[in-house]
Amino acid sequence: MSGVHTIMPTPFTPDGRLDEESLASLTRFLVAAGVQGVTVLGFLGEAHKLSEAEQDVVVTVTVQAAGGRVPVFAGASAGGVRVSVERGLRFVELGASGLMVAPVSPEPAVALAQYRQLDEALAGSGGRVPVIVHDYPASTGVKVSAETLARLHAEVPSVTTVKLEDPPTGPKLSAIKRHAPGMSVLGGLGGLYLVEELARGADGVMTGVSYPELLLGAVRGAADPDPQTRQSAFAEYRKAAAFLAFEFQPVVGLALRKEVYRRRGAIAHAHVRAPGAQLDADLARELSDQLAHLHAVRPDLTGVPTA
Amino acid sequence: MSGVHTIMPTPFTPDGRLDEESLASLTRFLVAAGVQGVTVLGFLGEAHKLSEAEQDVVVTVTVQAAGGRVPVFAGASAGGVRVSVERGLRFVELGASGLMVAPVSPEPAVALAQYRQLDEALAGSGGRVPVIVHDYPASTGVKVSAETLARLHAEVPSVTTVKLEDPPTGPKLSAIKRHAPGMSVLGGLGGLYLVEELARGADGVMTGVSYPELLLGAVRGAADPDPQTRQSAFAEYRKAAAFLAFEFQPVVGLALRKEVYRRRGAIAHAHVRAPGAQLDADLARELSDQLAHLHAVRPDLTGVPTA
Amino acid sequence: MSGVHTIMPTPFTPDGRLDEESLASLTRFLVAAGVQGVTVLGFLGEAHKLSEAEQDVVVTVTVQAAGGRVPVFAGASAGGVRVSVERGLRFVELGASGLMVAPVSPEPAVALAQYRQLDEALAGSGGRVPVIVHDYPASTGVKVSAETLARLHAEVPSVTTVKLEDPPTGPKLSAIKRHAPGMSVLGGLGGLYLVEELARGADGVMTGVSYPELLLGAVRGAADPDPQTRQSAFAEYRKAAAFLAFEFQPVVGLALRKEVYRRRGAIAHAHVRAPGAQLDADLARELSDQLAHLHAVRPDLTGVPTA
Amino acid sequence: MSGVHTIMPTPFTPDGRLDEESLASLTRFLVAAGVQGVTVLGFLGEAHKLSEAEQDVVVTVTVQAAGGRVPVFAGASAGGVRVSVERGLRFVELGASGLMVAPVSPEPAVALAQYRQLDEALAGSGGRVPVIVHDYPASTGVKVSAETLARLHAEVPSVTTVKLEDPPTGPKLSAIKRHAPGMSVLGGLGGLYLVEELARGADGVMTGVSYPELLLGAVRGAADPDPQTRQSAFAEYRKAAAFLAFEFQPVVGLALRKEVYRRRGAIAHAHVRAPGAQLDADLARELSDQLAHLHAVRPDLTGVPTA
Repeated sequence: MSGVHTIMPTPFTPDGRLDEESLASLTRFLVAAGVQGVTVLGFLGEAHKLSEAEQDVVVTVTVQAAGGRVPVFAGASAGGVRVSVERGLRFVELGASGLMVAPVSPEPAVALAQYRQLDEALAGSGGRVPVIVHDYPASTGVKVSAETLARLHAEVPSVTTVKLEDPPTGPKLSAIKRHAPGMSVLGGLGGLYLVEELARGADGVMTGVSYPELLLGAVRGAADPDPQTRQSAFAEYRKAAAFLAFEFQPVVGLALRKEVYRRRGAIAHAHVRAPGAQLDADLARELSDQLAHLHAVRPDLTGVPTA
Repeated sequence: MSGVHTIMPTPFTPDGRLDEESLASLTRFLVAAGVQGVTVLGFLGEAHKLSEAEQDVVVTVTVQAAGGRVPVFAGASAGGVRVSVERGLRFVELGASGLMVAPVSPEPAVALAQYRQLDEALAGSGGRVPVIVHDYPASTGVKVSAETLARLHAEVPSVTTVKLEDPPTGPKLSAIKRHAPGMSVLGGLGGLYLVEELARGADGVMTGVSYPELLLGAVRGAADPDPQTRQSAFAEYRKAAAFLAFEFQPVVGLALRKEVYRRRGAIAHAHVRAPGAQLDADLARELSDQLAHLHAVRPDLTGVPTA
Repeated sequence: MSGVHTIMPTPFTPDGRLDEESLASLTRFLVAAGVQGVTVLGFLGEAHKLSEAEQDVVVTVTVQAAGGRVPVFAGASAGGVRVSVERGLRFVELGASGLMVAPVSPEPAVALAQYRQLDEALAGSGGRVPVIVHDYPASTGVKVSAETLARLHAEVPSVTTVKLEDPPTGPKLSAIKRHAPGMSVLGGLGGLYLVEELARGADGVMTGVSYPELLLGAVRGAADPDPQTRQSAFAEYRKAAAFLAFEFQPVVGLALRKEVYRRRGAIAHAHVRAPGAQLDADLARELSDQLAHLHAVRPDLTGVPTA
Repeated sequence: MSGVHTIMPTPFTPDGRLDEESLASLTRFLVAAGVQGVTVLGFLGEAHKLSEAEQDVVVTVTVQAAGGRVPVFAGASAGGVRVSVERGLRFVELGASGLMVAPVSPEPAVALAQYRQLDEALAGSGGRVPVIVHDYPASTGVKVSAETLARLHAEVPSVTTVKLEDPPTGPKLSAIKRHAPGMSVLGGLGGLYLVEELARGADGVMTGVSYPELLLGAVRGAADPDPQTRQSAFAEYRKAAAFLAFEFQPVVGLALRKEVYRRRGAIAHAHVRAPGAQLDADLARELSDQLAHLHAVRPDLTGVPTA
């Protein structure tokens, strides 16, 4: 796995129902933007606030809207291994190209058993698909070592990739690449450390940045053999850092990103399900200000979103 | 609400499937033991490791097995308020007499909005049922004050009760009773502090103790006008404390309690779903030893379980 | 290391000053009770609320009061390794027979470097003394594996012992004994799981139980070759479980234990330094009730403390 | 309180001793840079890894080096209120102009008692000095509400200021200003949200950014009546965001900032005390790259630090 994969938010109507049309148009928006893949049902996707039926709809609608142009990955983390596997199989059945699953325990033996169970279930039904280990201790409470990640990759065929969100990501990324050179490592954390991650050998990035164009420029640049071109791509990326930090804020970050998508015409409403902070007038004003700055320093970005 | 309400584990077969027969027999076992109610889909019930379909089956089977002899409460906590309400309505539809829901936030306004939303949904469908606030910070990460609990009771008609598991429970229980004399307070935490809770005015207890007889004796005794009888009931209860502390151990406690039910003939298997510790030979031996001691000091308990 | 080692509280006057006389009399009280050692400056000793000068006084006074009849261990955990080592050397200089230090990191390499630094500093000054690894994740936030504990014992000469307070303690204790048969393991956690710990091979217990007589009976019994005597000692110990659980409560436990020592005549005041809960009238009443029960079921305990 | 206050790191020699010369030269460096104040013994200052004697030296040396040109604030947070007060009085005696203290509890009554005790002790000895409430839940584990902060300001004369590091800071800052218009609010969190904080009425910033020039430009700009000048100052500040995010990384951030000061000639060594990550070759390379970018986009910054 490589390139830019966008973690998609789940759009809702103002009264909190799943907004399937917005989900489809957001998918098309991202495909048009040129991302290499999209991922639904992550933490940002409010997967934990969706019913199972809604989760199924999210996968179905996104797969259909993607139309085979990019793969759709689906988050299948759950409180128990059995339900996680069950959900994962269902998502694959509905068209998901791969799964993203967080480890349920820091203990190597327990984590290994978990991914093996998923792997065997996949092999035994429609066939293996890539499984991404979601390494995000701040959200899951589970901190696995680089050695354990390498073992998961070595011993479980489906485990091809880790989405690395255990900061500081640089040293851990280097350690994973040392222990498991063949394991794909994707950056995350709102793209805040993307330049350093790419320079250390990250294969791409999987995060919820609402301007995937920014990530695409950095990832494309990193792959260029010409050092000058690389540096210039990184410099362009860094110009957007104020915006990236702003939209990655705790608690209100999701509402901000939904609002960007709304202003860009990709979704109809910025509603966030409770408990979750909604946008207020102050935040909206700050967002407008940040976007004005972003477009000023990155005039290549098209379509200045207005309020 | 008052009396003894048992938080039920969810029985599984050795390969991890829901064991409906054991669920029914466990329900009948508890009814026969004389409890005032049972609660399914709590944390101990591995609700977070069940699919929605399985949760529905758990409620249905338990309600049917209870046969109206005791009320069945159902846990409806969820990552998002909307799904929590949806699940709650469904459980009531399936026969649950009330719901148990943890607050999603320590902020009074957010918690109030949450329980109001549930209350209005209940009022708007089949009618209000009692809602128990599950105050268990160690498990939920959310710590609400006695004042907030009192406000929930005062402002939301359905909120009749709190299951108090924020130790030290004594001072908080007294504070709740001061702020909201009409709110039912049920003890929890494996019955470890039950005597003190009852002496401070607790209305009963809702916990997973595998010998509900113990809880019944204490609660009955506490209601007796004769101080001598009270003291004697409490003394009897305290004899079981070593066992209560043993079966309330972190990580392995659930496996121990399932094993007790198995030995007592109430369920067929002690299997715990992953991730979750299973019983091993050492723990089984320790349990046998504890049970031998329990029956020695409390010869009134019937049927010494053998391994 | 083996036997019963009491974690001592630090007595204060009602206005919060260090009460040296009570410290000395408490030490003599414990020596007279027959414990094999005492430990000052643990978490229960409010070490984190003492100035360095006060810490030094605590060690000095306790060592003097012990008068060589039992060893005095001193807690030397600190935010940084350098200060921890500095404090440790100072305590040894003041007469401490050994040190108790919590690991600063779950990473084996970092923990090893920490204990090696302490070991070398000890070897380079007055000579090595036993170092106890304090394994108490709930208080330190650091969770080390049985394997790491075994490595600390194998590679650092001073590290002779672990005070195990990572529940469930049984399985971890067995794992440590498997990996490092020569490492002393002492139980803790208020003695709640002591019977199981001794049965699995624990060498003793180091905790703050305010009736060390209880612990002494269990530890002595466990060493008896006669199974009948063992069982009977364990049965006696289990009778006290209600009291042990009561005085081990979060937040208010320290005030309760100080009050017991006060009632037993060992210290003059039960004051706890802020932030820390003081005893109130309700808790005092509950304590009286628990003590009455304790002495009723264990008439061998001398001197019923009155309020 | 207003303007830019730098949280100072504590410089050490490569073998971990306090480097007093570097401490003095760093102070002079910051005074020359034009900051309105400096703060020692914060979390970034590794206060928790210093002995009391070292803490005293840090205050003394810094006060002397500042020479009255800027105030020196000192962190006096501690595990217990009594030691915190004792340390605070000592720091004032040694010349500190004010104190920074974190709340010991989220409960309003306990926090109020804590700051009152400090306030009365100050009033009773040399006289009151400004006390800054350090609101940093991620580090202290204590989360206080805007209402509680306002009460501390209203009821405790010394409490003039809050250093706000509870993200998202924008909404909380507005709430504090609503409840306590007279309370100074300083931003923190590495300056990541400074523009928004200033726009919402923050009085300044107190953080460890290793280029205080950046903060000074933003704060000065924010005070300008001309909107154009404001916007331009904010735009300049945002150009540095990639660097700000890089040096604010968890775990390795302190080593990075020390290295910047070293390269800028302000201190002699970048050593961090254990446990704490040191700079390695990869991080040093990344830092060089970030600095090159920073100076490219902000050519007004003087003296490009070389490795």
